[in-house]
Amino acid sequence: MKPLIYEDCQAMDRQDPLCVLKDMFQLPQGLVYLDGNSLGALPKTAQSRVTQAIQHEWGNELIRSWNTSGWFELPRKVGDKIAQLIGAYPGEVVATDTTSINLFKVLAAALSIAASDSPTKKKIVSERSNFPTDLYIAQAICKERGYELVLFDLQEQALDSVLLEDVAVLMLTHVNYRTGAMHDMRAVSALAHDQGILTIWDLAHSAGAVPVDLHSDKADFAVGCGYKYLNGGPGAPAFVWAHPKHVGRFWQPLAGWWGHERPFDFSPDYIPSPSIVRFQCGTQPILSLVALECGVDVFLAAQELGGMYALRKKSLALTELFMRLVDERLSPYGISIVTPRKPDERGSQVSLIAKEGAYEIVQALIARGVLGDYRAGDGGKYPDILRFGFTPLYLGFSDVWEAVDQLHKVMQTEEWRDPRFAHKNAVT
Amino acid sequence: MKPLIYEDCQAMDRQDPLCVLKDMFQLPQGLVYLDGNSLGALPKTAQSRVTQAIQHEWGNELIRSWNTSGWFELPRKVGDKIAQLIGAYPGEVVATDTTSINLFKVLAAALSIAASDSPTKKKIVSERSNFPTDLYIAQAICKERGYELVLFDLQEQALDSVLLEDVAVLMLTHVNYRTGAMHDMRAVSALAHDQGILTIWDLAHSAGAVPVDLHSDKADFAVGCGYKYLNGGPGAPAFVWAHPKHVGRFWQPLAGWWGHERPFDFSPDYIPSPSIVRFQCGTQPILSLVALECGVDVFLAAQELGGMYALRKKSLALTELFMRLVDERLSPYGISIVTPRKPDERGSQVSLIAKEGAYEIVQALIARGVLGDYRAGDGGKYPDILRFGFTPLYLGFSDVWEAVDQLHKVMQTEEWRDPRFAHKNAVT
Repeated sequence: MKPLIYEDCQAMDRQDPLCVLKDMFQLPQGLVYLDGNSLGALPKTAQSRVTQAIQHEWGNELIRSWNTSGWFELPRKVGDKIAQLIGAYPGEVVATDTTSINLFKVLAAALSIAASDSPTKKKIVSERSNFPTDLYIAQAICKERGYELVLFDLQEQALDSVLLEDVAVLMLTHVNYRTGAMHDMRAVSALAHDQGILTIWDLAHSAGAVPVDLHSDKADFAVGCGYKYLNGGPGAPAFVWAHPKHVGRFWQPLAGWWGHERPFDFSPDYIPSPSIVRFQCGTQPILSLVALECGVDVFLAAQELGGMYALRKKSLALTELFMRLVDERLSPYGISIVTPRKPDERGSQVSLIAKEGAYEIVQALIARGVLGDYRAGDGGKYPDILRFGFTPLYLGFSDVWEAVDQLHKVMQTEEWRDPRFAHKNAVT
Repeated sequence: MKPLIYEDCQAMDRQDPLCVLKDMFQLPQGLVYLDGNSLGALPKTAQSRVTQAIQHEWGNELIRSWNTSGWFELPRKVGDKIAQLIGAYPGEVVATDTTSINLFKVLAAALSIAASDSPTKKKIVSERSNFPTDLYIAQAICKERGYELVLFDLQEQALDSVLLEDVAVLMLTHVNYRTGAMHDMRAVSALAHDQGILTIWDLAHSAGAVPVDLHSDKADFAVGCGYKYLNGGPGAPAFVWAHPKHVGRFWQPLAGWWGHERPFDFSPDYIPSPSIVRFQCGTQPILSLVALECGVDVFLAAQELGGMYALRKKSLALTELFMRLVDERLSPYGISIVTPRKPDERGSQVSLIAKEGAYEIVQALIARGVLGDYRAGDGGKYPDILRFGFTPLYLGFSDVWEAVDQLHKVMQTEEWRDPRFAHKNAVT
C-alpha cells in the first residue's frame, strides 16, 4: 500500500458530506483540537443563547423564568434530546447534576432492586481500568451497604469468569477513557442477564461519539457526560437514564425536591415522581444547562446528514486514518497504538504509548498546535498514554494529517526533551 | 405615631449610604423586585464574565482552561469568598453541586461521626416547617441507615423537649423559608451540644441576608444556596462547610474524583482529600460557577460600606418599614404579618397571610409590577403565605412604599378576584 500523503487527506475532506458541520463551532485558528473527548468545542449558538438566558431570562424576567422561560422543564427537555442519541425514548432521560452523582443514584437504585429480587447477591463488578470516579462512587456505596467491589482486567480474565451468581450489578464504562476500547453492550448485557445481573453503563465516552441503543442492547441503567462529545461546555450537567421497568421500583437516596411528584405542594413527605424525574434532586445550573442544549442541538441538526450513524462512519474513517499514519510515520520512533484496531471494538479516540516521555511529548505537541492529552498510567499498572479524541463534527482528514505530521516533528527533533515540557500538571 | 407618607421613604433613601450598591445590578425598569430570596438579581459584571468564560476560556483555551483559567480551583476560590460572609476561614468552604446534595453529604458525615461516638443515638431532629427538600434528604438517609426523623413544631413544642439523648443530629434551616423566622444559632448550638447532638445548618435564606458566624456560634456543619441572596444566577452551585474538627473524620458517600487527595493520579482507590475538598464530587458547571462568583463579589465590594453588618442594619430597616406600612394600610383588608417582629428573630423577608386568595393577591400584585411570591400552606397545616424578600443591596425605602401601595390598591379594588389571577402554578 502506497504511503498516504497530505493531498490524499485533502481529497478525503473534499468528499466529506459532514464537513459543513464544522461551521457550527467556533474553533481557534491554527489549532488541531483532539481533546473533544475531554471538553467539547464551543458551538456557535452557545454565546447568544447564554446571553439571552442572562439578559432576558435572569435579568428581566427574574424568578418568573422558572415558568415563562421553561427553566423548570429544562432538564427533561435536554434529556429528551439526549435520548435521541442513545436509543432511549422521550421522558426517559434527565440532564442533571454530574456523572459521579448520577452514577450514585443508579447504583443505589440498582442495588435496591437486586437486594429485593436476589438478596444473596452482594457484589458489584467493574473494570480495573474504569474511570476512577466510577470506582470511587462504587467503593463508597459498597461501604454504605455492605457490598464488595470486584475489579477485573480484561487482559487477564474473561468477563464471564467474573459474572458469577453472587454479583448484583455490573458497572462498566462503555468506551474506556484510557484506551478507547468499546464494550459490546448487547453481548455483555446478555451475559450479565444470564446470571441475573443488572447492568449500569457509563456513556461518558460514547454519547455523541458512537451510536448507542440502550433499549435494543437491553441496558438497565445509564449515565453520561455533557461536556465531552456532547459539547455542552465546561462542567455541563450530566444525564441519567433508567429502563422504564426499573424506574418506579425504588427511589434513590438523593431524594431532593426536584424529584418529588408534586414539588410545589411543599409537602413534608417525599413522594417520588413515577418517572425518571425522580432521579432529579436539587435546582439545576441553568446557564450551564442552556449551553448544554446548544451542544446537543448540533447533533439534532446533523440528523439531516445521517445523524449518529453518519458521524460514526466518519469517526471510524478518522481514527483509521490516524492509526495508519501513526503506523507509517511514527513506529520508527517507538510510538505504538493501544486502541483496538477492529472498528467494532473502539470508540472515537486513539491512544498511543511511547517508549518514554509520554507527558512531555504531549506538551511538545500542544506547543505545536495539536491539542491532545496525557493520562498517567496508574502507578505502573497501565502505561502512560497519549490520548487523541476525534470528533467528526469539527475535525477533518487534513487535521489528522497535521496531527501526525507535528507529532512526527516532535519525535524527529526530540524537542520533547526540552525542560520546558517537563512539568507534570495534567488535567482531564 | 403619625402615619408614614411616601416623602418619608424618599428621605430615608437619601440618607442611605448603601444606595450606591444598587448600581451594581441590572434590574428591569419599573419593577419592584421582592423575590431576591428566591432568585437574586443580575449583577452587572456577570454578563461580561460569563462571556469571557465562553469566548476566551472555553472557545479559545478549551481544555487548557482547567489550568490556565483556574477552573479546577474555582469551587475553592468561590468557597473562600463565601466563607467571609458566614464566619468561616479560607479553605473551609467549597461552592459545588446543589443544596440538597450538599445536605446529603454533611448529613452522611455527621451520622458517621455520631455513630462512632455515640452509637445509641438513632434520631435526626428537624423542623416540620423546614424546606421540604431538607426533609426529603433526611428521610432518604434515615431509610438508608436505619435512623428516625423526628419533626417538631416550635408553635407546639420547645426545642429542648425534642433534643433528647437519643438524638444524633439536629438539622435546621437558619431562616425559615416560609415565615422568615430566624433561629438563634448560638443558643440552639449550645442546647444541642449539651446533649451531644451535632448541628447542621441550612443557610439558604441567611447567607448574604444576615450576618452568620459559624465558628463563633459553634456550628458543626452548614450548607447554603448560591442563587438566592448571593445573586449567583438561576440554579447557581450551592456551598458546603464543615467544622475543621469534623472534616477529616469520615468521608461522605458522594466520593467522586474531585474529592480525591490526588485526582490526577487516576488511582483506582479513593483517598479523600484531608480538607473540605472531600465534599467535592464531580466536575462543576463552570459557566454557572463564574456567574456565582460575580454575585459573591458584590458582597466583597460592599465591605467598604460596612459589609454584612451594614447590610443587616438596612435590611432590618426595610423589613421594619414594610411591617409598619402593612399594619397601617393593609390590616383593614385582613392582611396580617407572620414574620417575627423582633429584629433578632427574623431574616431578610416578611411573610403575610390573607383572609383569602393569597395566591391570587400575589398574582395581581405582580401584574402591578411588584414581584413577591406565594407559598402554599402544606395542605392546611400552615396558612398560605405571601412572601416578600428585602435585599438591601438593591432595594430602597421608596420601593417598600411602592410595594405596600400597590398591595393596597390590589386589596382596595379587589382586582385579585379577577379570574386571570386564579390559575395555580407557583414556582420557587
